[in-house]
Amino acid sequence: MEIVEVSPRDGLQNEAVHVSTADKIALIERAIASGLRRIEATSFVHPAAVPQMADAEAVMAGVPRRADVSYSGLVLNRRGFDRAVAAGVDEVNCVVVASETFSLRNQRMSVADSVQTVRDLVDDARAAGVGVSVTIATAFGCPFEGEVPESAVLALASQVAELGVGEIALADTIGVGVPAQVARLVAGTAAAAPGTRLRCHFHNTRNTGYANAIAAIDAGVTVLDSSIGGIGGCPFAPDATGNIATEDLVYLLDRSGIASGARLPELIEASDWLGGVLGAPVPGQLARAGGFPG
Amino acid sequence: MEIVEVSPRDGLQNEAVHVSTADKIALIERAIASGLRRIEATSFVHPAAVPQMADAEAVMAGVPRRADVSYSGLVLNRRGFDRAVAAGVDEVNCVVVASETFSLRNQRMSVADSVQTVRDLVDDARAAGVGVSVTIATAFGCPFEGEVPESAVLALASQVAELGVGEIALADTIGVGVPAQVARLVAGTAAAAPGTRLRCHFHNTRNTGYANAIAAIDAGVTVLDSSIGGIGGCPFAPDATGNIATEDLVYLLDRSGIASGARLPELIEASDWLGGVLGAPVPGQLARAGGFPG
Repeated sequence: MEIVEVSPRDGLQNEAVHVSTADKIALIERAIASGLRRIEATSFVHPAAVPQMADAEAVMAGVPRRADVSYSGLVLNRRGFDRAVAAGVDEVNCVVVASETFSLRNQRMSVADSVQTVRDLVDDARAAGVGVSVTIATAFGCPFEGEVPESAVLALASQVAELGVGEIALADTIGVGVPAQVARLVAGTAAAAPGTRLRCHFHNTRNTGYANAIAAIDAGVTVLDSSIGGIGGCPFAPDATGNIATEDLVYLLDRSGIASGARLPELIEASDWLGGVLGAPVPGQLARAGGFPG
Repeated sequence: MEIVEVSPRDGLQNEAVHVSTADKIALIERAIASGLRRIEATSFVHPAAVPQMADAEAVMAGVPRRADVSYSGLVLNRRGFDRAVAAGVDEVNCVVVASETFSLRNQRMSVADSVQTVRDLVDDARAAGVGVSVTIATAFGCPFEGEVPESAVLALASQVAELGVGEIALADTIGVGVPAQVARLVAGTAAAAPGTRLRCHFHNTRNTGYANAIAAIDAGVTVLDSSIGGIGGCPFAPDATGNIATEDLVYLLDRSGIASGARLPELIEASDWLGGVLGAPVPGQLARAGGFPG
């Protein structure tokens, strides 16, 4: 099982507390020290839209460079892509949205335009030696439209796969998904995007995130996003918890006999440290409860 | 899917805040108004051991009596059984422990003696028209011994089933279980206790509770314990969350197309109300996040 550590990007982007560049780099160093090897380090979006990510270039300039660690940057357009490549990311994470309303409000472009954005980048990414992963947002439900037809998600997955991207992710942006839905969507996406690696991105907003992670694994998904501390609450549900917590996921994987390469003691230390930086307890529970006794 | 609402007993018993008898009865009334029909109302243990449950008789005297609502009382010995029957419970919930150390510390008797306690009650329960459900505690791990051999759990299930009880529950007392373990233990228990109804009792201490609930359902379990608000933290992990929350479980079931008879809007109201009674936010997330949008 491969874990993409998203705390530096999806985890921090909605935090009210300003986190210094040095602390972001320290978080990434702690993730690496915990055995994590694939890290969504930052987001190359307009600083006015996401002030927490205004130091994207500085973060990338400060992270340790190792042959066995891969850094991803979120990009939503050509400008962001050029910045990400110049900053030396190993891969870009592009976003398309399964719901038209969310796409217009969050990305400020139609779904078709967001697919076109990816299309315009793929060749240049290949030429630059940069991987492309595409996240399908609101795949399990939309805060504005409610139900998102599975047919719409699968059609989008098919369109994106035809662009020749390396990986497609199904994202439960607002944490509404349940395991049965995960099983259906993963099977459908595997059929709609044959040969493309599948990743899943779950939020634990309604306490279904870890059940969904297990359902994704059972359905054949080999890459999961998670964030140390489980930070990353959705702006549409301000008090709700965020991404599934890396330390809680690793406990679940370890006890299930599924190897991830990540180590719980270091993750718990990192989670405690991150709570200190943010000045509030994190949603992840392993740091409070401790691992399996004995 | 049948839900046993355990907030009045397992939920409240470790709460530091003293909850009045009137509020306990109000909680039970709210559970019933939410469509719940099987309620663990109280515990008939020594008041010095669990002060929060000292008003067991008063609670049972005050709950609404309806033909479609069943009340359970936890009993650990003959004295408790006699009190429960006199108070008019519909069923008793007895506890045996899969780990000898936990049994000695928590029940103050050996595992064999706790099985003997159940044996001594079964005939009288039948004569009194009172159902007997037996919960196997620490079935997924023990705070003192760590790993609990599955063979020990299954041997205990077999012994208990031979007593002719109506239902056996596998309880993850300290919230350490994972879905693969649930699948193995449920299948093993079904084989060891043929014809006995199976119930599962999960705590969300390490964020595995809802994944375990789904695993139990997939393995054929038809009865799950949960508590409104997700209250019921374990004394061995003071800051960790408690039982799986009824409202979060019902969201998960509803969205999975599994009928439980419980209604989310009333459960969310009850959860909010309970947080007010306890003076602290409850661990359940549905009351904060809201149901599926739209």
